[in-house]
Amino acid sequence: MARVVVDVMLKPEILDPQGQAVQRALPRLGYEGISDVRQGKRFELEVEGPVDDDALARIHQLAETFLANTVIEDFTVRVEEREEVTPA
Amino acid sequence: MARVVVDVMLKPEILDPQGQAVQRALPRLGYEGISDVRQGKRFELEVEGPVDDDALARIHQLAETFLANTVIEDFTVRVEEREEVTPA
Repeated sequence: MARVVVDVMLKPEILDPQGQAVQRALPRLGYEGISDVRQGKRFELEVEGPVDDDALARIHQLAETFLANTVIEDFTVRVEEREEVTPA
Repeated sequence: MARVVVDVMLKPEILDPQGQAVQRALPRLGYEGISDVRQGKRFELEVEGPVDDDALARIHQLAETFLANTVIEDFTVRVEEREEVTPA
């Protein structure tokens, strides 16, 4: 079982009110030095079987068709190397 | 200028209706072999100046306090290596 991550972000030229709201709140909250914030979506897909070129191509197509609105969003597809999760 | 990415995902034990909706739709749409989908948030922060341990610690605190609800969400903080974006 492998994990494939699809990140979907608004294109740079598209206004991002969510990200802007976060960015404008930061100085008030005591965090300086962050000049821009963009907010997007992250999909984690658990894939059965090997993630070969064929499987990645299908997931790419899936992301393009269903997960992202390619008129206003860009996306990336990648096989995830396991990252350290901060237990909270 | 460096980019720091904060990924916020629901904890594994928390139900994820958005991800489930995507996962259940996939076989109908012709995509088999994906056993689970989780949907979360991705924040891209553009940081002025060097991203040293101190800056990362502040962003970690920021994420824990404002970007994630740590009762139900886990998060990761990492400096992004530039990835290939699929132009769509």
